[in-house]
Amino acid sequence: MTRAELTEKIVAHKMLKGFKWSDVAENVGQSKEWTTAAMMGQMSMSKEQAIAAGNAMGMNFGDEEIGLLMSVPYRGSLDQQVPTDALVYRFYELIQVYGTTIKALIEEEFGDGIMSAIDFSMDIDRKEDPNGDRVVITLNGKFLPYKMY
Amino acid sequence: MTRAELTEKIVAHKMLKGFKWSDVAENVGQSKEWTTAAMMGQMSMSKEQAIAAGNAMGMNFGDEEIGLLMSVPYRGSLDQQVPTDALVYRFYELIQVYGTTIKALIEEEFGDGIMSAIDFSMDIDRKEDPNGDRVVITLNGKFLPYKMY
Amino acid sequence: MTRAELTEKIVAHKMLKGFKWSDVAENVGQSKEWTTAAMMGQMSMSKEQAIAAGNAMGMNFGDEEIGLLMSVPYRGSLDQQVPTDALVYRFYELIQVYGTTIKALIEEEFGDGIMSAIDFSMDIDRKEDPNGDRVVITLNGKFLPYKMY
Amino acid sequence: MTRAELTEKIVAHKMLKGFKWSDVAENVGQSKEWTTAAMMGQMSMSKEQAIAAGNAMGMNFGDEEIGLLMSVPYRGSLDQQVPTDALVYRFYELIQVYGTTIKALIEEEFGDGIMSAIDFSMDIDRKEDPNGDRVVITLNGKFLPYKMY
Amino acid sequence: MTRAELTEKIVAHKMLKGFKWSDVAENVGQSKEWTTAAMMGQMSMSKEQAIAAGNAMGMNFGDEEIGLLMSVPYRGSLDQQVPTDALVYRFYELIQVYGTTIKALIEEEFGDGIMSAIDFSMDIDRKEDPNGDRVVITLNGKFLPYKMY
Amino acid sequence: MTRAELTEKIVAHKMLKGFKWSDVAENVGQSKEWTTAAMMGQMSMSKEQAIAAGNAMGMNFGDEEIGLLMSVPYRGSLDQQVPTDALVYRFYELIQVYGTTIKALIEEEFGDGIMSAIDFSMDIDRKEDPNGDRVVITLNGKFLPYKMY
Amino acid sequence: MTRAELTEKIVAHKMLKGFKWSDVAENVGQSKEWTTAAMMGQMSMSKEQAIAAGNAMGMNFGDEEIGLLMSVPYRGSLDQQVPTDALVYRFYELIQVYGTTIKALIEEEFGDGIMSAIDFSMDIDRKEDPNGDRVVITLNGKFLPYKMY
Amino acid sequence: MTRAELTEKIVAHKMLKGFKWSDVAENVGQSKEWTTAAMMGQMSMSKEQAIAAGNAMGMNFGDEEIGLLMSVPYRGSLDQQVPTDALVYRFYELIQVYGTTIKALIEEEFGDGIMSAIDFSMDIDRKEDPNGDRVVITLNGKFLPYKMY
Amino acid sequence: MTRAELTEKIVAHKMLKGFKWSDVAENVGQSKEWTTAAMMGQMSMSKEQAIAAGNAMGMNFGDEEIGLLMSVPYRGSLDQQVPTDALVYRFYELIQVYGTTIKALIEEEFGDGIMSAIDFSMDIDRKEDPNGDRVVITLNGKFLPYKMY
Amino acid sequence: MTRAELTEKIVAHKMLKGFKWSDVAENVGQSKEWTTAAMMGQMSMSKEQAIAAGNAMGMNFGDEEIGLLMSVPYRGSLDQQVPTDALVYRFYELIQVYGTTIKALIEEEFGDGIMSAIDFSMDIDRKEDPNGDRVVITLNGKFLPYKMY
Repeated sequence: MTRAELTEKIVAHKMLKGFKWSDVAENVGQSKEWTTAAMMGQMSMSKEQAIAAGNAMGMNFGDEEIGLLMSVPYRGSLDQQVPTDALVYRFYELIQVYGTTIKALIEEEFGDGIMSAIDFSMDIDRKEDPNGDRVVITLNGKFLPYKMY
Repeated sequence: MTRAELTEKIVAHKMLKGFKWSDVAENVGQSKEWTTAAMMGQMSMSKEQAIAAGNAMGMNFGDEEIGLLMSVPYRGSLDQQVPTDALVYRFYELIQVYGTTIKALIEEEFGDGIMSAIDFSMDIDRKEDPNGDRVVITLNGKFLPYKMY
Repeated sequence: MTRAELTEKIVAHKMLKGFKWSDVAENVGQSKEWTTAAMMGQMSMSKEQAIAAGNAMGMNFGDEEIGLLMSVPYRGSLDQQVPTDALVYRFYELIQVYGTTIKALIEEEFGDGIMSAIDFSMDIDRKEDPNGDRVVITLNGKFLPYKMY
Repeated sequence: MTRAELTEKIVAHKMLKGFKWSDVAENVGQSKEWTTAAMMGQMSMSKEQAIAAGNAMGMNFGDEEIGLLMSVPYRGSLDQQVPTDALVYRFYELIQVYGTTIKALIEEEFGDGIMSAIDFSMDIDRKEDPNGDRVVITLNGKFLPYKMY
Repeated sequence: MTRAELTEKIVAHKMLKGFKWSDVAENVGQSKEWTTAAMMGQMSMSKEQAIAAGNAMGMNFGDEEIGLLMSVPYRGSLDQQVPTDALVYRFYELIQVYGTTIKALIEEEFGDGIMSAIDFSMDIDRKEDPNGDRVVITLNGKFLPYKMY
Repeated sequence: MTRAELTEKIVAHKMLKGFKWSDVAENVGQSKEWTTAAMMGQMSMSKEQAIAAGNAMGMNFGDEEIGLLMSVPYRGSLDQQVPTDALVYRFYELIQVYGTTIKALIEEEFGDGIMSAIDFSMDIDRKEDPNGDRVVITLNGKFLPYKMY
Repeated sequence: MTRAELTEKIVAHKMLKGFKWSDVAENVGQSKEWTTAAMMGQMSMSKEQAIAAGNAMGMNFGDEEIGLLMSVPYRGSLDQQVPTDALVYRFYELIQVYGTTIKALIEEEFGDGIMSAIDFSMDIDRKEDPNGDRVVITLNGKFLPYKMY
Repeated sequence: MTRAELTEKIVAHKMLKGFKWSDVAENVGQSKEWTTAAMMGQMSMSKEQAIAAGNAMGMNFGDEEIGLLMSVPYRGSLDQQVPTDALVYRFYELIQVYGTTIKALIEEEFGDGIMSAIDFSMDIDRKEDPNGDRVVITLNGKFLPYKMY
Repeated sequence: MTRAELTEKIVAHKMLKGFKWSDVAENVGQSKEWTTAAMMGQMSMSKEQAIAAGNAMGMNFGDEEIGLLMSVPYRGSLDQQVPTDALVYRFYELIQVYGTTIKALIEEEFGDGIMSAIDFSMDIDRKEDPNGDRVVITLNGKFLPYKMY
Repeated sequence: MTRAELTEKIVAHKMLKGFKWSDVAENVGQSKEWTTAAMMGQMSMSKEQAIAAGNAMGMNFGDEEIGLLMSVPYRGSLDQQVPTDALVYRFYELIQVYGTTIKALIEEEFGDGIMSAIDFSMDIDRKEDPNGDRVVITLNGKFLPYKMY
């Protein structure tokens, strides 16, 4: 069994049983965003978290599966440089359109450096709106300045 | 003069004069994110906005330049499918790592559809933190459901 | 079983049995265009629609198959950036030839924005013509204006 | 002067003068879609059409420019395999999502063959709608059957 | 069984049995070029043609195989944008070297348009020559003029 | 002046003066196919041929231009791996569709080897047809067998 | 069994048994370079050669395997446009560095044309050297001049 | 002036004056292969070599040009991953066809390691042959073994 | 069993058993860097090393597995030109940012040449730091000068 | 003047004047590695550093040039995904060969996370060796652990 096969197994299981990622997350004791990423094979869990996730989903993970959930994945959840899925592509489009803007504004405010994608958290929320509810995604990463040396 | 040349001219001017994008934005009457994107050649301005931006930057735009700022750009601020700049790349990496997670959570919450990148706004903020200040970027887009027909 | 395998199974079944997509669509209660896209793994169905489709095709879907038909697909029905199939390529060619024309005319008529590919419907029809019948495809998408903010 | 430079000159002229493509088309005596494509360097005009277009735009074309408008272009209006512009990309997305659907439905209706992109016309229209006006694009191409030989 | 697997089966069968494509073609009642392309999964056959081909090759096709031979393939017999096989590459090289020449001469003779790759036939012949026999390939396609509209 | 600039100059001159490639070829004393390829920067001419071509086109070539026409070009007349021009693409499509067929038939007839693209000639002709005239292209290349050693 | 699987089987067999390619070649009666290429699936053998190779390797080839060794392969032994293996890459690097030099020197000496990769042989030898032995590879291909026609 | 512009200037000069690379090499005191590579911008010369080359070509290099000839180039003489020029492509094809063969034979003879492309020399010669003269290219590189550590 | 499958088997085994690469290395008698690379399928071992590695990991390798560990791999541990994994990507980014700097400084110090990636060793160490421990990677390769010839 | 043009100007100036990067660095008060990267357009300087660099190189920078040296660059010093220069490529090869090894060893030692390419320094040194001097490059980056949240 590879990590990709475990991801497929989890996704198929969810599809049939219909639990929510936020319920899994609550059992794991982390946010729904991080927990979903771990289920998708992009984050590594502790043994306790892996077992807790399995319990929440009604999946009784064996040793090999727990090992896979604990191991550090080779990250990259897409097999494409430019994503074809419409939902995922919109975020790629935002980088194409706003990439230089984001760079300009972060550097103006913080100086030369980057927003960390490692010391990082993300929230995905629904904001009700009479003209149609909105998706609100908050990216929160530590600013890391380039060092002179 | 092409739109790209005007962008270079504006950026060079900013570099030498040192004004802030937020001051330009205030004069234009829009957010600093939208205004910077417009200066970077990714949004189209009204005539009044173009003139106001020029005044705020101390640039006296001619007719051709105003025309360029008013015209709808061919969007795409990068010349690369995968960006090489470290700051911009981190956002590409977030899509590679979190792409399937974002898809899973939006679809669980809203059903099948996308977050619009058109009916969309963005805020870039600094959040002070004793362990190092953080960049907080809020993406706010209307949910658009796939329609059956 | 993956979604791709289910698509292959459905297509092979159609090939052997010879029913028409429009008959499936009628049973499902949606257009032939949307229904075919759903069969091809690009749209997600309700449980009732999945069962109705199965009945129309003489396929008795099991739980897993119904689950797959109900789940939101990772969209992208081709594995190629530039399609090699002659029929599909012609549409890619139209974008290469008419892309800037479509952009110019939509923006002249509606202002800066896009035609939605989500709030969207499509009709494919035959138009008889003594010089050879014609394919008439109507794309109908909501105009979404870029918002200033 | 290259054909691309002439396109830029025409587009810049339109931006400053503000005439409409449909007015140019009326003077030329063809549809606004074909005429815009010709202006964009994707179709070749007769001498009379080139002169008529120049008159409608208030541009007094010289011999070289008329020659360029009459010559057959190397087609392809984008410099990218996957377009980055949001409006143009939506049509690429439609091919990714609906490519196999369009193929299935045309072949079911007409048999093995293609919709011609040469013996072809296109209409771009606005359809008023209380929920937001819609872009309606009609693609009309002769069906060409594969020949056995 | 997929179409690609059937192609492999046919090719392996030919390799072991040693019949000639022209004999298959004669039984099918079409040219050796079209028949070989159909065997290679690039053309669709009638039921009678599929059975006749099987008989000529000494293969007793089952229902599923006949169905596959009758269905319209997703065309594209290579998995590469630039072919690595030496024989196939030479034709790609001819396009790279003579592409603009072919375009110039067809357009000079016929006006703006294309040579159809659908209403098309091909002959592959040997021409004896004391300096080494020659391959003579004749491409014969209907000229399709671009239409004004 | 580069070879590409000379090609552009020749093409622009032809566009304005309207001579035919076959007339140039007659003066040069070679076929219209080879001569056009040489004009397009894909073949190298002798000094006499270069001067003869210039005379036929009414261009009085200088020493540098003659030198360029005599030098061996870096071949490749397109800047794209997959051509976007509709006319040129059809030939790429023929390789995608018929590549394995051509390979199978040449190897069945001649054994393992290739059709030379160097010891090669090409004819482009019009064949009248009541259903629409046809383009007939004859490719004629020496068969080169792979050698054992 | 595919040709690629047979190659893997031969390579694994060699790894375990430890015979030398030159011994296989001697039994086959061809050079070690050609014989190894044939074993690697890049050249086609006669029936006698295939059987002789099997004997030399202690592999008793069945009919299907002999058929595969006799059939003409789809050439291209790498799955990459730019090879990642260090040994193979060095040859790619030589083309990048010396490509224009090789072109200049061959054309100066022979005129316009190419070195054949079909009427071609190669020798790979060791040359002893007190500073470290050297690999000496000799490429020997017939010069093929471009023909005027 | 960039290094690429100097290369173009040298090549144009050679084209007009007609000297031979081997004469330049003799004056420089190195092989014709190394000297041509240096002229093509792929090797760096000493001051004396640069001046000697200039004298041999009848070019009186200025200080900037000599500086360019002395500086270490960013190597890579092609702008393409897969070369389109027919002569250069044949060498790319040899890597595709013989890459795994070369790897197998060098490793069998020398053990795990590579042929150096740095401690390397190349000879390009003509070998007369009644069936057509042959190009003989000898690649000579030090074997470098992988080190355990 | 392929080499890639053996790598997966070793990695899965490590994940479940939890031994350390440095312990394997000690048993093998080489550095942890070289030994890990060998386990990952990028270096070839002697028979004794392969057996020692198996013992250290508690894996009793069979003949085929030992043969695979002894054979020279086709190098390249990633399937991507640009790596998507965050840890691996940072090293690609260093090449993008510092590539020209490394080139300039090595050439200034050593003259024209390269740092060998074959006569090469690497150390990966932890350096404690109150502001967060640091990864220290030392690359040590023989300088190889370009030779004139 | 663009940043790329300034880089070219600095490099050309160095080539003619022959100062050393380490002397520039000493004047700037930073390491030779960081200073060279800044000169190459990959790091941003303070005003004092830019002036000090100019003095050390004997270049009297104007306001615009100082502005360019102070501005944050769009990073990426190569125009290629895979570098063609032999020296730079060796580092790309190290990632291909050792990428998974580096990942395995850092994660074993530090847990899940990355080595920062921002809080990072590099030393390039010569180590004398009787078998040929060696290039020693030390990469020193803060370990950044993935955070659960």
